[in-house]
Formats: sequence, C-alpha cells, structure tokens
Amino acid sequence: MTAAHPVAPLNEETVHRLRQHLDGRWGHVRESARKLSERELFRPVPGLSIAEHRARTLAQLLSLCDEGMTGYGFPEAYGGGGDIGASITAFDMLGMGDLSLLVKTGVQFGLFGGAVLHLGTEIHHQRYLADIAAGRLLGCFAMTEHGHGSDVACLGTTATYDPVTEEFVVLTPDDEARKEYIGNAAQDGRIAAVFAQLVSAGQSHGVHCFLVPIRDEGGQPLPGIRIADCGPKAGLNGVDNGQLWFDAVRIPRQNLLNRYAQVDADGTYRTEIENSTKRFFTMLGTLIQGRISVAGAAISATKSALTIATRYADTRTQFSAPGRDGEVVLLDYLVHQRKLLPTIAKSYALHFAQSALVETLHEVFTAGDPDDPRRRELEARAAGVKASATWHATAAIQICREACGGAGYLSENRLPDLKADTDVFTTFEGDNTVLLQLVAKELLTSYRDHFGELDVLGTVKFVANQAVGNVLERTAARSVIQRLLDAAGRDDDAEWTDRGWHISLFDFREKHLLDGLARRLRKAAGAPDPFAVFNQCQDHLLATARAHVDRILLEAFVAGIDSCPDPAAKEQLERLCDLFVLSTVEAERAWFIEHGRLPAARTKMLPGVVNDLCGQLRPNAVGLVNAFGVPDIAVDVPLLR
Amino acid sequence: MTAAHPVAPLNEETVHRLRQHLDGRWGHVRESARKLSERELFRPVPGLSIAEHRARTLAQLLSLCDEGMTGYGFPEAYGGGGDIGASITAFDMLGMGDLSLLVKTGVQFGLFGGAVLHLGTEIHHQRYLADIAAGRLLGCFAMTEHGHGSDVACLGTTATYDPVTEEFVVLTPDDEARKEYIGNAAQDGRIAAVFAQLVSAGQSHGVHCFLVPIRDEGGQPLPGIRIADCGPKAGLNGVDNGQLWFDAVRIPRQNLLNRYAQVDADGTYRTEIENSTKRFFTMLGTLIQGRISVAGAAISATKSALTIATRYADTRTQFSAPGRDGEVVLLDYLVHQRKLLPTIAKSYALHFAQSALVETLHEVFTAGDPDDPRRRELEARAAGVKASATWHATAAIQICREACGGAGYLSENRLPDLKADTDVFTTFEGDNTVLLQLVAKELLTSYRDHFGELDVLGTVKFVANQAVGNVLERTAARSVIQRLLDAAGRDDDAEWTDRGWHISLFDFREKHLLDGLARRLRKAAGAPDPFAVFNQCQDHLLATARAHVDRILLEAFVAGIDSCPDPAAKEQLERLCDLFVLSTVEAERAWFIEHGRLPAARTKMLPGVVNDLCGQLRPNAVGLVNAFGVPDIAVDVPLLR
Repeated sequence: MTAAHPVAPLNEETVHRLRQHLDGRWGHVRESARKLSERELFRPVPGLSIAEHRARTLAQLLSLCDEGMTGYGFPEAYGGGGDIGASITAFDMLGMGDLSLLVKTGVQFGLFGGAVLHLGTEIHHQRYLADIAAGRLLGCFAMTEHGHGSDVACLGTTATYDPVTEEFVVLTPDDEARKEYIGNAAQDGRIAAVFAQLVSAGQSHGVHCFLVPIRDEGGQPLPGIRIADCGPKAGLNGVDNGQLWFDAVRIPRQNLLNRYAQVDADGTYRTEIENSTKRFFTMLGTLIQGRISVAGAAISATKSALTIATRYADTRTQFSAPGRDGEVVLLDYLVHQRKLLPTIAKSYALHFAQSALVETLHEVFTAGDPDDPRRRELEARAAGVKASATWHATAAIQICREACGGAGYLSENRLPDLKADTDVFTTFEGDNTVLLQLVAKELLTSYRDHFGELDVLGTVKFVANQAVGNVLERTAARSVIQRLLDAAGRDDDAEWTDRGWHISLFDFREKHLLDGLARRLRKAAGAPDPFAVFNQCQDHLLATARAHVDRILLEAFVAGIDSCPDPAAKEQLERLCDLFVLSTVEAERAWFIEHGRLPAARTKMLPGVVNDLCGQLRPNAVGLVNAFGVPDIAVDVPLLR
Repeated sequence: MTAAHPVAPLNEETVHRLRQHLDGRWGHVRESARKLSERELFRPVPGLSIAEHRARTLAQLLSLCDEGMTGYGFPEAYGGGGDIGASITAFDMLGMGDLSLLVKTGVQFGLFGGAVLHLGTEIHHQRYLADIAAGRLLGCFAMTEHGHGSDVACLGTTATYDPVTEEFVVLTPDDEARKEYIGNAAQDGRIAAVFAQLVSAGQSHGVHCFLVPIRDEGGQPLPGIRIADCGPKAGLNGVDNGQLWFDAVRIPRQNLLNRYAQVDADGTYRTEIENSTKRFFTMLGTLIQGRISVAGAAISATKSALTIATRYADTRTQFSAPGRDGEVVLLDYLVHQRKLLPTIAKSYALHFAQSALVETLHEVFTAGDPDDPRRRELEARAAGVKASATWHATAAIQICREACGGAGYLSENRLPDLKADTDVFTTFEGDNTVLLQLVAKELLTSYRDHFGELDVLGTVKFVANQAVGNVLERTAARSVIQRLLDAAGRDDDAEWTDRGWHISLFDFREKHLLDGLARRLRKAAGAPDPFAVFNQCQDHLLATARAHVDRILLEAFVAGIDSCPDPAAKEQLERLCDLFVLSTVEAERAWFIEHGRLPAARTKMLPGVVNDLCGQLRPNAVGLVNAFGVPDIAVDVPLLR
C-alpha cells in the first residue's frame, strides 16, 4: 500500500535550489522585494488602531514608490519598467507581509493605474501615469456598487454627455448605485476611475470608465461629491475603503478613458468594437491583472502561514507517549501531518499554476494585441486559479491557525491578520462562485467550437469515444504530458506514483463532467424556463470548473517539475506532486467510483497511501516551506522564538 | 430521484411553535435573556479599541449580575438559583450577541466560580460564592501553561507545602510554566484559581487547584505576582487575557480547593480517591460545564450568522436571467441554497444534541454524586458535541460571510466578529482533535466492557455479527429509534426519507469503524513501538469519533422530532433531519461504497436528492432561521435594513 518511491532527505543546498526554481523568471524582483521588506518600516505590526494602520500603510506605499518597486508595470516613457511580469511578481511578494499594503498598492497601481493605462490613451498617460507611479497622485477604482457587486453590466451610475459644455454629468441616481467598498476613497484618493453607463443623445452605450476628481489638494471632497467611510472591516484596516455618491458632477469630455470608445464633441459615439457585449468584456478583460494579482497574494499569504505553522509544529511538543523519551513533537502526529503536508503540496501546485499564468499574462500584454485569442483563455484560467487560490488560502490559514492552538489566536503571531486580511479575497475581484461559472461557460464555448452544435449523433459519438486528450486544451508542457499519458498504467494496478495515470484521472474527470454538463444544458435552449434548467445544473457547472482548475494545477506542476534543473529538487517536487494528486483524488474518490473509473477496492487504499506519503515527507516539511523564501520579518513571530 | 415527502409551507404560527419547541425546558430563561439583551448596553458595537471594548464588556458583565442572570448555577444558599440547566441556557443566549461578554462571563462564573463551587468546600463557598455571583469578586481560571496547552497533567507550576507556616508556596519554575491566555488576568481579576502540582513532604501528588490572590484592591499586582497582557487577539478583544508568573507566592493552607484532597497542618496528604489518575480526572470532570457551554455558544453564534445571511439571501438580488422579470434573488440559486440549507439543518441537529446534553448535565450535577456512571458518558459526549459544534461554527460562519459578499466583510454587519470571536473555540476548552481522541478512547473502553479483551474468537464472532444496535449505547429516545430501525427499508430501495434506514446507516458506520479500530489497536499492546501503531491509526480514531458524534446528533434530532407537540412544526423538523442525514451521507458516501454498505448506483443519486431537498426547503429558509429566536439587536445590521 506504500507509495513506490521513497522520499529523499532534503538538505540546505537543495532547499536553496528549490527556492531558486520557485522564484523563477522574475527571481531578481523577488530578491529585491525580500531585501526591501526586511526594513523595519515593512514589519507587520498587530493591534494598530485604524488611524495608525492607515497612516503606516500610506507611509509604506510611498516608500515603495521611492524604492522604484511600484513602476515595473508602467511604460518606460513614464518612468516605469515596462515589465508586466515583474510588476505582478513584486506585488506577489507583498502578500507575505501586511496585506493592507498589498491591497492599497493594488488599488493605486494595479486598478486605478491599470485603468488609466489600459482603458485610457496618450492624453491620459501623459497627464497621469508618472504621477501615479510616483505616488504623487493617489486614486480609486470605483466599479462596485451597493446594489451590484458581481454584476458590473447593470451598474446604476450614469455619465450623461452634455454637448453644450462638452462635459459628462456623472450621477448616482439612487442609493443602490452608490459606489461601495472603494479603496483609497475614505481618505487618500484625489481622483476616481468611475465605471458608469455612458449616455449620449438619449442613448445608453453601456458601462465605460471616467476619471472623476473627488478631493481637492487639501483633501476635502469636491462639490457634488459625497464620501463616507466603510468603517472597520474584518481585516485590511490599513486600507481606507469608502462609499462615493456623485450629485451631477461635471467632468470634461476628455475624462472618458477612450481606448475602446470615444464621444465626439457633438455627442457622436464611436467605437471600433461594435458589439456592446464584446466591448464591455474587452474593457473588463484589460483589468485581468487585478484578478491574477489577488491569486498571487493569496498564495503568498498562505506561504507565510504555512511557514509559521510548520516551523512551530516541528519544535512544539505535546503529550508523552509510551516507549518514547520526552513529549512527542506535534509534526510527528499523523493527524498533524495530514493537516499541513497536503496543504503545502497544493500550495506548490498553485505556485506553479500562478507562475505560468503570470508568464502568459506578460507575453499577451507585452504583445499588446487586444484581439489575441490567448486573452480569453487567459481570462478563464485567471478566474479559475483565482477562485482556487483564494479558497485554498482561507482553508489553509485556518488550518495553520488551529495547528498553532491558542498561540495561533494571538495577533502577535500573525495568523489572525493573515486570515482576516485574505478572507475577502474569495469574494472580491470577482466572487469565486461567479468566477467558476465563467470558467465553465468558457469550457462550454470551446467545447462547442470543437463539436459544433452537438446534435444527437455527435453527442453519442463523442461520449463513446473514451480516449481523452483530444478535447482538453493543454495548458502547459504538452509534449511531456503526452509522453506521460502514453506510459500510463491501468486503473486497477497503476503504481500510485504513476504520473501519466494521475493525468488521465484528472482528464477523465473534467471531460466526463463537461460532457454531462453540455448534454444537460442543451435542454435549456428549448425549455419553457431556461433559468430553471440552468439552476438545476449549477452545482454540476461548478464541479466542472473545479475539475478543470485541478487539471490546470496538475499540468502546471508537471511542467514545473519538468523544467527544474536540479535533480534533488526535482525529486522533492515529484513527491509533493504525488501528494497533491492523491489527496485530490482521495477527496473526489466517490465520484471516480460512481462514474466507473476507479474500483472501490482500490480507492479504499487511498487514505492509507496518503498517510504514508505524509509520513515520508514529514522530515522535509520545514525545508519545503523554507523553499518558499518568505522574508524573515514576515515570520518573525514570538511563537517561533 | 426526488425525496418522497414534499415540504409543507411554513407560516408565522408554525415558526412560533417551532421556536417554543427549540427553546425547550429552560424557555423562560431564554425569554428573560432575550428581553434583557434588547437593552442598548448589550448591542454589539464593532470597531471599539481594546480599552473601550474591555470597559464595555465589564460594564455588561456587571449589569448581568444586577439583573440576576449570572447566579442561576450557584446554590440558593449563596444567592444563586440552584439551577444548572438554567445557568447553561442563560450563557448560551449570550452567544448570539457580543461573544466577549460570553467569554468573560464564562471565565468569571463558569470557570473561576465553577472551580470554587465544584473543587472547593464549605469554607470556600461561604467565603467567596456570594461575591463571585454578584460580580464583587472577579477572578481567573489559571490552568493552561505556555508549554502545556492540552496536556494538563504535565503542568509545571508547583504548590509546595510548608508545614512551618502552614502555607503553600506557589512557584513558576520556568517560562514554559507561565500561565497563558488567562481571561480576567490582564486587568480585572483579583484572585486566580491556579492549577499546580501539589508537593508535600517531598512528594508530588499531581495537579490540584489553589486560590491565589493576584491583585490588591487598587488593581496593582501583589508581591511575587507578575502579570503580562496577551495583547490583541483575532477576536474576543473585550476579554483581558494575560499571562501569570508566581515567584514563590505564599498562600494559606486553606486556599487549596479541597473537595477531593486535603493537606493536614503537618503536611499529611489525604484523599478519598487513592488512584491519582482517577482523582485528576474527577477534578477535571467537574469542569465539564465549560466545555458544554462553549458548544452552546458556538451553536448560538452560528444561529446569529445564519439569521443574517439567510435573511439577506432572501432579498438580495444578483444578475438577471432569461425568462425572469428583474434580477434573481440570491437564495433562488441552487448553489446558494446548497451553502445555507444543509448548514441550517446541521445547526438544528446540534441544537437538539446540545439541549439533550444540558438536560443530562442538569440531572447528573443536581444529583451530585461524583461516582455517577453517567458522568463519564457525559464527558465523552460533551467532548464530541463541543468538537462538532465549534468546527461547524467556524465553517458555517465562513459560509455566511462569503454568502454576503463584500457586505459580509464589513464589521458593521457582525459576521467578521462572529467569525473571529468563535474561531478560538475549536482549540480552547480542549483542542478539538484531542477531544475527539478522548471520545474514541471512551468508545473503545465501553467496547472492551462489552467484549472482554477481544480474543481472536471473540473478534471473529463479533465481526461476523452484522446486526447493529447491540453495542452502540443509545443516547436518546431508545424506543422510538428501535421502532424506526425495525421498519427500515433495504439499502437498494429504501425511500430517501426512511428514518430507520438513516439510523441504520449511521449505526453501521460507527460500528464498522470502531470494530476496525479495536482490531488495529490490539496490535499496539505487543508492538515494539506502541506509539507508532497508535499514530498510524490516528485518522481512523478521529473518523470513529466523528461517526459517533454524527450518530449522537441524529439520535438527538429524532428525539427532538418525537417530542415536538405541534404537527406542522414536526413536519418541518422531519425534512430538516432528512437534509442533515442525506448531506452527511453524501459527504461520506465514498466510505459507504468502499465498505460495501451502499451501491454506487444509489449514492450517485445523492447530490441530486440533496439539491431537490434544498429547493423544497428554500421557501421556508427564513422561517427556519427565525425559529432560532435570535434577539433583534444581535442581527440589527445595516445589510438587512
């Protein structure tokens, strides 16, 4: 019942190589960020009042500007680095420290700066980008409304063009349309990128983004602008979230961010993307960096928590045992291993998936073609990884908190703040449930691309064809994966560590779920109440998306192993990947049995196999979290002293 | 595939009857608590500074004393109510409001007061109880040490008897032995019930409890007492947790709480319980009320969170749908139903299990016989329900937070505090993992009582005997359960709502796990490294305990249905119980298939059956949470206005 390959010991040198491999293409940015973050200014301080926390976060943000850590993503012409991957990586590193700084940085440079950069044109870039990158102009990203969280197309705020004065009149028509949870709004923002329905000559053209000044130089709200403070939150209290109302505020015509659509002086609306839905999604798509950044932040915070909890578990003792000297170290208990090791393994999987996503993002956005077909694929993948990474963070940090007992509940040990700060990630930058639906819809779209409208004959043929791999879009390391698949063993006797078999299981699950989903949803087309049909499938839809994300994670892990130059480090990754796969299959094993893929006699062994693997990896646990390279200051907590 | 019985609509009158039934035997106490809690002083206020929060919590606590809500559990001779069940019920109700008040109340009256009451004798009762009940004497319960959380037998603090002065000398020998996370210690406590190793005439007699004054009337630490503040915590910041060190502090001989052991003036140690392990557990056992109270508090906080999230989901809309007018109400989405309704159902199950526990506690402690065999059973059951209720609270409140999106992250909407405050419940008053082990060990003990030492023949016979019910100790409604079991359908065609079949599934799971566990652990006796054998079974041990707790919950639910006098209310409970059972079996279905109990063809239908039941219960969701009877002030949040 044991996993075939024993786990090799892990020495300091291999930890170092492992870390270099994880650091990847933008490793130099990670190193700079690590050095910078060791400054006392960046030490996470628990228990600050909201005013103190906001002040400290602002000071940290301005210091990041001084150090040139915030401009990576802006064009070189405006003092930036012109390096999108570096920008996301630098942001990612902030996720290991105080997450208020991360979120405020994300609001200022990613969302507000990103809106100006990606939705604006030359005139906006010249006027604002240098000041934004340097922190001289702080701004907000005012999309979400009280009445409309995830449903951006239905926003209530309007920007009505007045050709007489060549201005837009920005209006909050009712309280449902007030801008809600807007970072930088309660205190520091001077200008807001406001998403509103563009109306010209009595016609609505859908949601567009406008720059609306909200505060004067002295920090007072401008006429027509009402601002309220969201008050204390579960976490992230260093960020000044607020609400915004616009009482017929007039802004110049040029304040429309007009990359994708323009309003002429006479009110004529012009756009190169005639289809309004496509235009809307093109505009939103440019904001994909935010979603990818949140995934990275979630993974980083998880690494900090795991570093704390694993180091603690490796030294803290509890209860004596017969035949043993002294008390037993926490991490020697099977159940403690069970809590931490699969969590570490999944964090590695997410790390590789996230790295692959950042690389693709960098390529796509550096190429700069809005019609690039890779964009849509990237959007779906970003949505899926974001949902998976943020739910994982919530679960993992909770596990770490409990694994540290009462000490884990004290703010001085960081786990409470890591938990509370990341909690919102599951519902912001896209609610995870909504994002998974987006993933599933994208899968159905490419499914249709492959099989046309799926008439009965086509469906039958398709279902009869059990060879997988001909539908699924491989996300990484295609040739390696195919080679592994070709060598895969059989379900009843494959070795537990047979990677080709692992891939075939993940493939099967996704494809089978997707087949079934497509069949069920086809019925919706002719049904009297299509919503009812959709709604009955909603859990099936989400299961399909989750299966897809699991496969993305596995493929990224396989690619990450394949590209690892150090054999000893590679060996560790192999075993972590085994644990990721087998604990995932263990959790989903009822489905595999019910769908005739795995015999119950075999799945019954899985808990024992996973236990075994946890035991084998246990001696390496601290090395495996050390390889995350979390800066010392982020894990310098009393519990570890 | 649908559940056989449709769900009847739920009107106001039935909600009222349901609530009366849930309120149960101490309904009058719940009603008093509800009235009292509507006072502005008891409104939960988010975002207070630690100093403000502590001051408000103390004021609330003293007001509870004035209102006579804190004395229910003390003897009438000392101004109390002599009603243990009422005492736990009153405490329970505090769990719906600000949990800092709950915990400070628990520390003062349950733990500190409980130690004096249960471990002390006449002299201590006369001297302290009236002052404790009235809030004139605030105290601490100083058990946990830095180096020893759950392992109380190994505490490092010593109390060494000095016959010359007839005093105990209380000493913290090293920093591992400092008292940690002690409520009331950082600010308000005047005296501490300190658990320490009693040493007399050079001999150690194990852990005992001593009253040690720690502060003078002016609030200054007494000589030899060092106190530090634990600082900010994830939640419960209205409670002043601290650390305590004792530098050879002298206390009179009479300050030993001497109900179970006495030290004479000359240093002679006397006890009626010769076995030191038994004595230790007898002393700890009297503190069982704390554990039961925490379970109640966790359930109450869950009810508050579910009330907020369900009412919100019933009005909040998101996205429009083809063929529907306007946007869809959140709770109309299948996945939203899936989040909230099984959570509501399990909360009902826990409510009934907790009520049964409180009744038993009341009977056992009112009878007052420390040798009552029901005590040990009660301890195990309390441990199991505490673990289940607190993990459920953590998961449920997280679900509620996410179900409310960004609004759920704002402190004004209470969910952040409910979550952060209850988080510690999973690891205090006994770490849940440790508690489940205690449950499993107790099951193994009664197993051995039934089957002797389980020789090979006995084991084989036992395993061959697939008739269940002859080993499991029924916890409630024995005759009803037997009647249902006798009428149970077969696994391949029982109706989904067949209660007897439900019970037989839960029975089977527990018994099968327990059988296997006993077989595996028998090997430990002769093994060269018994810890290794134990450790390999640790997950099996916890699975057994969880299966046991699930059965306790089901039996309590069945008893709660059986005793419900109102047919319409009863009908609602039946369907909730179906949902509790079927969602539990759904989650555990891999195990049922693998162990040959359920065919995969049948379990495959379970997700659809659970979906269906959620849809049927959806129109009643708000009524079902209203029946919890959470005071208006505890759920009066902006998100619902």
